[in-house]
Amino acid sequence: MNPNIKPSPYSLVNALLRQAVKQTPVWMMRQAGRYLPEYRATREKAGSFLQLCQNPELACEVTLQPLRRYDLDAAILFSDILTVPNAMGLELVFRENEGPVFPSPIKSFHDVQALKQPDPEVELKYVMDAVRLIRQEMPANLPLIGFCGSPWTLATYMIEGGSCKNFALIKGLRYSNPKLLHQLLDQLSQALINYLNAQIHAGVQVVMIFDTWGGVLTTKDYREFSLSYMTKILQGLKRHYQQQAIPSILFTKGGSAWLELMADTGCSALGIDWTLDLAEAKASVGDKVALQGNLDPCVLYAPIEVIEQEVKQVLQSFGQGNGHVFNLGHGIHPSIDPEHVVAMINAVHKFSRQYH
Amino acid sequence: MNPNIKPSPYSLVNALLRQAVKQTPVWMMRQAGRYLPEYRATREKAGSFLQLCQNPELACEVTLQPLRRYDLDAAILFSDILTVPNAMGLELVFRENEGPVFPSPIKSFHDVQALKQPDPEVELKYVMDAVRLIRQEMPANLPLIGFCGSPWTLATYMIEGGSCKNFALIKGLRYSNPKLLHQLLDQLSQALINYLNAQIHAGVQVVMIFDTWGGVLTTKDYREFSLSYMTKILQGLKRHYQQQAIPSILFTKGGSAWLELMADTGCSALGIDWTLDLAEAKASVGDKVALQGNLDPCVLYAPIEVIEQEVKQVLQSFGQGNGHVFNLGHGIHPSIDPEHVVAMINAVHKFSRQYH
Repeated sequence: MNPNIKPSPYSLVNALLRQAVKQTPVWMMRQAGRYLPEYRATREKAGSFLQLCQNPELACEVTLQPLRRYDLDAAILFSDILTVPNAMGLELVFRENEGPVFPSPIKSFHDVQALKQPDPEVELKYVMDAVRLIRQEMPANLPLIGFCGSPWTLATYMIEGGSCKNFALIKGLRYSNPKLLHQLLDQLSQALINYLNAQIHAGVQVVMIFDTWGGVLTTKDYREFSLSYMTKILQGLKRHYQQQAIPSILFTKGGSAWLELMADTGCSALGIDWTLDLAEAKASVGDKVALQGNLDPCVLYAPIEVIEQEVKQVLQSFGQGNGHVFNLGHGIHPSIDPEHVVAMINAVHKFSRQYH
Repeated sequence: MNPNIKPSPYSLVNALLRQAVKQTPVWMMRQAGRYLPEYRATREKAGSFLQLCQNPELACEVTLQPLRRYDLDAAILFSDILTVPNAMGLELVFRENEGPVFPSPIKSFHDVQALKQPDPEVELKYVMDAVRLIRQEMPANLPLIGFCGSPWTLATYMIEGGSCKNFALIKGLRYSNPKLLHQLLDQLSQALINYLNAQIHAGVQVVMIFDTWGGVLTTKDYREFSLSYMTKILQGLKRHYQQQAIPSILFTKGGSAWLELMADTGCSALGIDWTLDLAEAKASVGDKVALQGNLDPCVLYAPIEVIEQEVKQVLQSFGQGNGHVFNLGHGIHPSIDPEHVVAMINAVHKFSRQYH
């Protein structure tokens, strides 16, 4: 234990550091999102999704909305992983019902060289302003989670030009010109280190890396093209700031087979999707890292009593001991009834006490 | 060894039964498909995709097309997994660029009860006619693979009304009315047993169950809602016909974590996607089953020499011994250059000899 680091007042931070807590802390991926009518109203006011991300007051507003409704143990910055490639100079458009589009995707060394290293306090100042505003406006007893996408995940959008099904272009490039891909991933990693460190300076207490598309790789390629760059980012991050530890969470969607590798990156915790029991995940990683997860988001469609049962099962699967943060195994769906979330959060707090 | 079963003349069958072969047999999921210009021409002639499936002459034609181009070790019946729900009475439409649609999806017990058990030689006679015609027209030294979708996978389309992202409806039903879901899965299983056995009678030498969407379940639900019904199907299948063993292949996309469970179902072989090394898969299942896979379909975008390298890696990962069928880890993409497939197949045959 570093003597310069003070005990944290936040149960989420303590759980991520595998320290004792009274009850399991809980938050939800996409907790500030479309399932909330107040989010949809603010989104309407903002205009486009990107304008919502770029407006610190409105981003702050939607970040705080779920905290007003629910007994959550953290806020997560409202933003999008693609703001970083955008700040590097790649034009980004969000088309209604179509998702993100980069109209001029990366095709050549020239395109990669044309990307700039953004100054987070210049090109991404709107994010840092949002972090400062949220930190100032949100309850002092709760932590704020910052985040970024993984270099591999960002590269998929930058090369495919948007969402895709087969990853044909980026994988084609991986085989025909791996050097170009490595150069892009390297530039992204540097930008993301600066970006997350700037978020820490601006006021987040936890950082999370979303590796949404690492799971489409072979094991060998996951190590070479995704994991190694996330490791580099973790090595470049501030581990503490103002005498507080800053824990980090790594989440590779579909990465259940690679938990042992992920636990060796130096992160504090791993996000686990619902396809793996937490007991199995715990058996894989031992006491190297905390675990975050992993209720199937579809459980929130169920009747209240079923939600409670399923929450109990997740808590039981992790069992006794420190190091569990409750979350969904993926983002909450837009069509979930907000009242069902109350049942989940109450069940987590109520039924987790016996395990601490 | 059952004395009534004769040694097979097909290297694919022998590999699936973990018997000696001279070189690793190879075929490709979706080998009869859009990447071939001759397929696109026949498809054009047929009208819709469903009309192509329902026309035995044209289905035979597209099944045989890849055999004319490539040194493949098997043909796979050209059909679609959704012909079975359609034959049970659920209207099915394939809309251009939109995928399959069931305009009146399953919502109630009444809807499930209204489904009929099709007679494969009546409602699915066009499939059986296609099998008979293909078997008659194709090279005698090659086996024909028949197939079906898993009950869970078919149920997702029947309840969601088509392709979906979140599986919200079927999982909502799983939590709100599991009994209804079990009844549907049970009826599907019975229909699929009859369907596969009819394919065996009509002339297929191997059967494969495609569990495309089993991977979206938790481990507990995978066992209860997908695996148990596939086990039931495998138990109901003819194991041999006309003194020939009929091996079976089970493929759950995204099911890498469950290989041990799958190996206990009584199937002959498991399909493996590319995210897991075959060496690891082999370590999980021991000598219970053969393994089929698992080149990343995106490797076929690579230059020829890279394709050869990657084929070598897959072969090496399986290593010495019987029980490997080479395949892609998923279906071949529509935009692959047909010439690249030649390189893959040649590499499999050439470089696999050292392992036998």
